[in-house]
Amino acid sequence: MITTKKTLLIAMLAAQFPMSSAWAADTNASTSTSLQSLQEQINELQARLNKTEKTAEQASDKASQAKVAATKASDDASSFEFHAYARAGLLMNNHGYGAATGDGKVIGTGPYMTAAGALGAPVGRLGLEDDNYVETDLIHKSVADNGTKSLYKIMIADGNRSSNDWTSSESQLNVRQVYTELSDISSFTGAFKNAKVWAGKRFDRDNFDIHFFDSDIVFLSGTGAGIYDVQLGNNWKSNFSIYGRDFGTDTSSNNIKNYIATMNNHIGPWQFMVSGMTSPKNDQRASTASSPTTRANSGIHTLFAYHGGSFYGLAKGFSKTGILMGQGLGAELKRIGADGNLNDKAKAVRLFSFGVANLNDTWKVAPAFMAEYSKDRIKTGDEFKWASLNVRLSEAFTDNFEMVYEGSYQYMDLNNGTSSANGNFYKATIAPTLKMSTAGGFFARPELRFAVSYVNWSKELDNYTISLDNTAKPMGSGGRTLFALQMETWF
Amino acid sequence: MITTKKTLLIAMLAAQFPMSSAWAADTNASTSTSLQSLQEQINELQARLNKTEKTAEQASDKASQAKVAATKASDDASSFEFHAYARAGLLMNNHGYGAATGDGKVIGTGPYMTAAGALGAPVGRLGLEDDNYVETDLIHKSVADNGTKSLYKIMIADGNRSSNDWTSSESQLNVRQVYTELSDISSFTGAFKNAKVWAGKRFDRDNFDIHFFDSDIVFLSGTGAGIYDVQLGNNWKSNFSIYGRDFGTDTSSNNIKNYIATMNNHIGPWQFMVSGMTSPKNDQRASTASSPTTRANSGIHTLFAYHGGSFYGLAKGFSKTGILMGQGLGAELKRIGADGNLNDKAKAVRLFSFGVANLNDTWKVAPAFMAEYSKDRIKTGDEFKWASLNVRLSEAFTDNFEMVYEGSYQYMDLNNGTSSANGNFYKATIAPTLKMSTAGGFFARPELRFAVSYVNWSKELDNYTISLDNTAKPMGSGGRTLFALQMETWF
Amino acid sequence: MITTKKTLLIAMLAAQFPMSSAWAADTNASTSTSLQSLQEQINELQARLNKTEKTAEQASDKASQAKVAATKASDDASSFEFHAYARAGLLMNNHGYGAATGDGKVIGTGPYMTAAGALGAPVGRLGLEDDNYVETDLIHKSVADNGTKSLYKIMIADGNRSSNDWTSSESQLNVRQVYTELSDISSFTGAFKNAKVWAGKRFDRDNFDIHFFDSDIVFLSGTGAGIYDVQLGNNWKSNFSIYGRDFGTDTSSNNIKNYIATMNNHIGPWQFMVSGMTSPKNDQRASTASSPTTRANSGIHTLFAYHGGSFYGLAKGFSKTGILMGQGLGAELKRIGADGNLNDKAKAVRLFSFGVANLNDTWKVAPAFMAEYSKDRIKTGDEFKWASLNVRLSEAFTDNFEMVYEGSYQYMDLNNGTSSANGNFYKATIAPTLKMSTAGGFFARPELRFAVSYVNWSKELDNYTISLDNTAKPMGSGGRTLFALQMETWF
Repeated sequence: MITTKKTLLIAMLAAQFPMSSAWAADTNASTSTSLQSLQEQINELQARLNKTEKTAEQASDKASQAKVAATKASDDASSFEFHAYARAGLLMNNHGYGAATGDGKVIGTGPYMTAAGALGAPVGRLGLEDDNYVETDLIHKSVADNGTKSLYKIMIADGNRSSNDWTSSESQLNVRQVYTELSDISSFTGAFKNAKVWAGKRFDRDNFDIHFFDSDIVFLSGTGAGIYDVQLGNNWKSNFSIYGRDFGTDTSSNNIKNYIATMNNHIGPWQFMVSGMTSPKNDQRASTASSPTTRANSGIHTLFAYHGGSFYGLAKGFSKTGILMGQGLGAELKRIGADGNLNDKAKAVRLFSFGVANLNDTWKVAPAFMAEYSKDRIKTGDEFKWASLNVRLSEAFTDNFEMVYEGSYQYMDLNNGTSSANGNFYKATIAPTLKMSTAGGFFARPELRFAVSYVNWSKELDNYTISLDNTAKPMGSGGRTLFALQMETWF
Repeated sequence: MITTKKTLLIAMLAAQFPMSSAWAADTNASTSTSLQSLQEQINELQARLNKTEKTAEQASDKASQAKVAATKASDDASSFEFHAYARAGLLMNNHGYGAATGDGKVIGTGPYMTAAGALGAPVGRLGLEDDNYVETDLIHKSVADNGTKSLYKIMIADGNRSSNDWTSSESQLNVRQVYTELSDISSFTGAFKNAKVWAGKRFDRDNFDIHFFDSDIVFLSGTGAGIYDVQLGNNWKSNFSIYGRDFGTDTSSNNIKNYIATMNNHIGPWQFMVSGMTSPKNDQRASTASSPTTRANSGIHTLFAYHGGSFYGLAKGFSKTGILMGQGLGAELKRIGADGNLNDKAKAVRLFSFGVANLNDTWKVAPAFMAEYSKDRIKTGDEFKWASLNVRLSEAFTDNFEMVYEGSYQYMDLNNGTSSANGNFYKATIAPTLKMSTAGGFFARPELRFAVSYVNWSKELDNYTISLDNTAKPMGSGGRTLFALQMETWF
Repeated sequence: MITTKKTLLIAMLAAQFPMSSAWAADTNASTSTSLQSLQEQINELQARLNKTEKTAEQASDKASQAKVAATKASDDASSFEFHAYARAGLLMNNHGYGAATGDGKVIGTGPYMTAAGALGAPVGRLGLEDDNYVETDLIHKSVADNGTKSLYKIMIADGNRSSNDWTSSESQLNVRQVYTELSDISSFTGAFKNAKVWAGKRFDRDNFDIHFFDSDIVFLSGTGAGIYDVQLGNNWKSNFSIYGRDFGTDTSSNNIKNYIATMNNHIGPWQFMVSGMTSPKNDQRASTASSPTTRANSGIHTLFAYHGGSFYGLAKGFSKTGILMGQGLGAELKRIGADGNLNDKAKAVRLFSFGVANLNDTWKVAPAFMAEYSKDRIKTGDEFKWASLNVRLSEAFTDNFEMVYEGSYQYMDLNNGTSSANGNFYKATIAPTLKMSTAGGFFARPELRFAVSYVNWSKELDNYTISLDNTAKPMGSGGRTLFALQMETWF
């Protein structure tokens, strides 16, 4: 009975607790399904992760290789640099001549085409340049393990007025610069920590120019050595350099050297530069009718300038203003120490001021002024005064096209001790110009331009020359219209 | 009792349902094991994934950096291009002289070594070239944000016959090209959408040549400006340009300019080019015995050509055929506007046809033909006829070695108004040649070649010169065997 | 009742087996929580993995792209190479002259400044060089699909003594090398498997020099063709070449060629080189007072050298020792076949030995010796003996600074057949030198140096010249102190 009862009870229980066993079975089934599903999901995840790990590893390896390759390529690519300045094209005048000069008996056109040009008096260059001038810079950079950097630069330049493609007979190709500069010098400390040292032949790093005149303010160059950026005070950096120059172009007098020692200081926006020079044998060079009364054997040259961060505080842009003074061999105020044909007593003073104002998206304006007074320059008793004023304006029309306008004026009062002349030079130029992007402003290049200029001057200047040489060329007669097709670029 | 019974029952149940608790335990144990295992697997997955996520992130970062670096490097690398054409080597003849010329009293060897060479009549060049000629191109490319592209190119070239390593006294180094070209100009639309604008000094882009003659069909070059690819019709593209040239090599007459205006049209495979030129002062240049009767002050030049996409429809390759006509300054048919020593009445017509056929993997053949008739060219009454035929064949032997054969013939009937001569020139050359890959065809370079040539001509031509100048060099006597070791390359 | 009982029983059971259902519930809850948690974790893992897979894929793609870009950039960058040698600076003497020469009537300073310099007898160069000399190499490399490699090289060089930046009138710019070399030539096998073939104009690859003397041991160069590295034995590699040279600098005699055939063998550290040359027309050149008694028409030249892997077995470094012999045109022992002004009977023998020892981190030393005996060199009966000894030492002070010392001595016993002189030359130089890293050793460049030298020589040599030409320059008087600022670099 108990058995019966028991059996019955079990059956009853089984009936009464279906959930228990059903649940047991259910749980069993569902859990095992879930577990199986989870395991499957995990397996799948593992498989995917295996693959992804490999993918990521390989991507990482590939990326590492790519980075190495890219870095090497970048190093390779950046260890070499190619830079250039170039202008080339065609200048025609209303007489059917190529250059404005025609017969080769007058000065060719260009920023130094006036009678005062021989003194370094420039006029606005736009539309006047007839030469094909090119500077090609090849640069090699390297870095030592200790962090010291070196830069090697060679500049090969050429300039001539021929329109022909083969110009071997007119070629002026020459090496204008070749130097090495060391920077980030690992063992330099204190005031010299950020100093750069160079030797070779170079244009001084801190030369600066008024582009519109094609005139440097100072152009110091030659062979020698120097140091830049010696920190003499909180805001005061100085350069020290020794440059050599040669006087005379005939090879026999090549050894008449001029040695120039320069100290160039930047104190905030102020610049003060002083150069002394000596050429002990200069007075022993051969003389002609156009030679100085007494050839100077030494000289001194100073520059005092202010580099403004705005257009005279009036508009966005920049402006620079200053004064240069020199005597003896230092009386050539731009090309420091480069002119050996100066009188012992030569004295010169030059003022300059120029700037660029970005008026708005359409208009930009750049006025420039330069004036010089010099005395006893070549012959004792000579006296030269000139002042140049130039304004260049650009008016953007499209992304690629702008009109460029230039007006230029020069006053000359010249007395070479034997004869004198005074008068004025005028130029007006309009130049439709194609650019990569007119948004780049005045100094964005390349420019492809067509320019029409009208130039005229006082008749009194036509046949006047500062030099007393018979072969010196005068300005010739004015009133010419010039047409130019020109490319100008730098990069 | 119930309690007892109950206890009993429970015990019974417990015995009856062992599976329930056993299962419970079992399930408990196995589920917990599974869960634990799953958790462990998940933990492991998480750990691996953590790592992989980092790996992938880092790989991604690294790849991004590498991409940036690679792009920069690529931009750096591609902003500069170096290209060249060069040939250099050694030419010997069976008389023990260096050049075929020996004593400097006859024309040197080369494609223009015949009496008609002075008229631009070429013969096959292979094995005749004694000069070391090199063109070095440095190119800078940039792209503005607006998409406008610019290309700057300078070509520095040299050519001389010296075998010495230091050739400063024979150096002809000069800047043959320096120009900037703008393309993809963002604000250009319509017919000008794909136009390119250039200014500076250049070889016209669409000049083309017969390589085997070392002769351009047209060689337009100089300083100026122009526009390419103005779309005048569906299939019609036009170029417009103004080029300047200088006449005279002495510096005093450098300013005798010739101005050339050109329109060059491509309509499908047809080309039509017309150039007008004016040199208002050309007749004012100094005269000698060899000067034109009346120096031309203007000229016109036309080219009509067909550029075939196959070898005259007969085989794979290409062929080009055309006619050139000119008068006055336009009578110099190849170097458009480059010859100022042409008679006012000069008239010339030139025919050309050449092609290259890739016969099979082994043989390639390139026939070329050029002929000219000109009259009143320099002196009124002169008359010049010449025709040149050349065939070059190449037979590949291995991946790197081929035999190159060239046969050349020129007919001349020359009358300079004072004296006349007519006759023939023959040349046969065989040149074992080493290449990087002979599969590259005729124009694959570099080629390192040894060449043996036999040249001969009619005795009547030996002392004849077209020029009436006393210093003009004749051909000298023929029947020479020439041995050459030469490299030629371009890239 | 049973129902009642049953109910009761169930209630009892439920009470009796709370764990069963509690466990069931518990297990249920915890398992389901665990499962849920696991599922959630798996879901999260899936989500993360989805993302990571993408990241990894993208990273992989990006890395692939970067690799392609980097490879392209690297190819672009490495297809071009820029190399240079350059020295430039300023040399002053205690007389205030630029060059030590001053008046242009005596030999300028430099390693060939002595009376024996005309024979190729050098003295130590440090502190004596007044020229700005630069070699610019542009190289293009490419690889064909078949693996054949090509290298194109052009070297443009200039050298002059002017300190000016614009040196177009003194420019010596010229193309010294332009050649193509093929290597890894796919169809070459056997002894030629690793051979390189070249043609064009070049400096022979295996020329080597004593840097401190600025003198090559052999300097073979010119136009021609050749093959390098033909494997003639296990340890034996040979070069075969033909070079042409021109005798005479006037263009009319440019065609007097000298043909040089050379075999150059390297067997382990031993080198044996033999060159034969012929210039069939050399004796037909014009003669002057300084011309050879009988101009040689042919010559033979040999070099036997040992290239040591240590400093004479004494210290780390290297050393090279050898002997050169020549007769006729081969009696110019350095510039093989480059001197046409040699007597038919000319005989010369030269010994050399030099090495560099890296003594320790601070000191390095490089002694060099060269001596020559020649007879019947220009005039029958002349006899020249000279020996040069030089020692350069460097002492490192910091990472960037070292002192360099050089002592140089030359013995001369010269008899040109008409007059004779003998005596000695002495030089001592001390040069504070700035480098990128002094750890680089003697040959690490750039060097920026200041050098002070004292040079003196026997008074007997002051006015002696080997040449009988009136224009030949003598040494002038000794006892000079020289100050130099100089950059020297190569890369």
